[in-house]
Amino acid sequence: MKKFAVIISGCGNMDGAEIHETLMTLLAIEKKECEYELFAPDKEQHHVINHLTKKEMPEKRNMLVEAARIARGNIKDISAFSIKNFDAVVFPGGYGVAKNFFTYAFDGINAKVLPEIEKIIKDTHAAGKPIGALCISPVLIAKVLGDVTVTIGHDKNTTDDIISMGANHINSAPTDVVSDRKNKIFTTPCYMLNARLVEIAEGVENLIETMLQDM
Amino acid sequence: MKKFAVIISGCGNMDGAEIHETLMTLLAIEKKECEYELFAPDKEQHHVINHLTKKEMPEKRNMLVEAARIARGNIKDISAFSIKNFDAVVFPGGYGVAKNFFTYAFDGINAKVLPEIEKIIKDTHAAGKPIGALCISPVLIAKVLGDVTVTIGHDKNTTDDIISMGANHINSAPTDVVSDRKNKIFTTPCYMLNARLVEIAEGVENLIETMLQDM
Repeated sequence: MKKFAVIISGCGNMDGAEIHETLMTLLAIEKKECEYELFAPDKEQHHVINHLTKKEMPEKRNMLVEAARIARGNIKDISAFSIKNFDAVVFPGGYGVAKNFFTYAFDGINAKVLPEIEKIIKDTHAAGKPIGALCISPVLIAKVLGDVTVTIGHDKNTTDDIISMGANHINSAPTDVVSDRKNKIFTTPCYMLNARLVEIAEGVENLIETMLQDM
Repeated sequence: MKKFAVIISGCGNMDGAEIHETLMTLLAIEKKECEYELFAPDKEQHHVINHLTKKEMPEKRNMLVEAARIARGNIKDISAFSIKNFDAVVFPGGYGVAKNFFTYAFDGINAKVLPEIEKIIKDTHAAGKPIGALCISPVLIAKVLGDVTVTIGHDKNTTDDIISMGANHINSAPTDVVSDRKNKIFTTPCYMLNARLVEIAEGVENLIETMLQDM
């Protein structure tokens, strides 16, 4: 039974993990009769956004504690992650990735990557195991690995940034998967496009199915 | 195109809405090519639970603001709800229902129901439109309407309470739906049983399909 690590950045698309993308990932993995374990960094979020007003709230929240809401408590600190225990790694999206995992939302192509996240990506790539990335997460993969091929849909600025990072970009529609089989990097645009939940579910299911062909 | 109102109590199974059940409800509604709108009360949660340690946190959170995380911001205050605009209403589960929508978690069969929630249930029932209830929410329906038939799985204490409230209970397995067609009350146990996410998805899909037969 193949086992996926799913790495998330909180709970909520504006300051943490995109909840829909995370759950569609878990559902797709279960549908393929595979296992998963969830991980998040035991660190403070960059900030907290009121998802109704879209304004910052005067609060502090911890990524692991908030991510535990999506996980119903079944989640571990990423310091406990070892690629030896997994066959593949998936990064769902959400602004939490671009604010907490690396500083792309603030620093663009000069973004700093959280060292623990950089290590997970490099270790997984070095082990020759597949990485799946949804939504904005392909930019993180491009930033860390450089010469890979990914998709984030077709947003011009983000695409230009990916190319500036030394990676390649292929435009995509909501349920498409772009496969870089040489590097075992698999990406799908999800909410980087104006998609419905059924399309998120289908896109992620396509991603997991494609990853399994390389496992 | 049939339209569902989905009423939630926050974001997280221990103090708010069960996230998995809420999203599987939205996915099931989209799969049937129907529409939905999300609602939550613009009121403070009873308390905030750290979903990792299961301990109470010294914080205050608002149900509508937190529920907006699941909804990606597309949610309204329940004061804006009118049954005239919908063909059916669904209540996902989570402890937030038993702590915020009524006080069942603390007061058992003597629970007090939030007046706005009681009105939604009574208005929907009086309009002859179907109500779907997941997980612990069937207890709320039993408390408000009394003589209805529901399921919460097979937990003995909860079942006894439902009967004490003047309702009937039918035991069920994870993906079962219990239909009270006279009262148009449709219930499925979800995480009141030790279920997997794929089973939640299947149970909720069965529920929505069954409700549509009566719409």
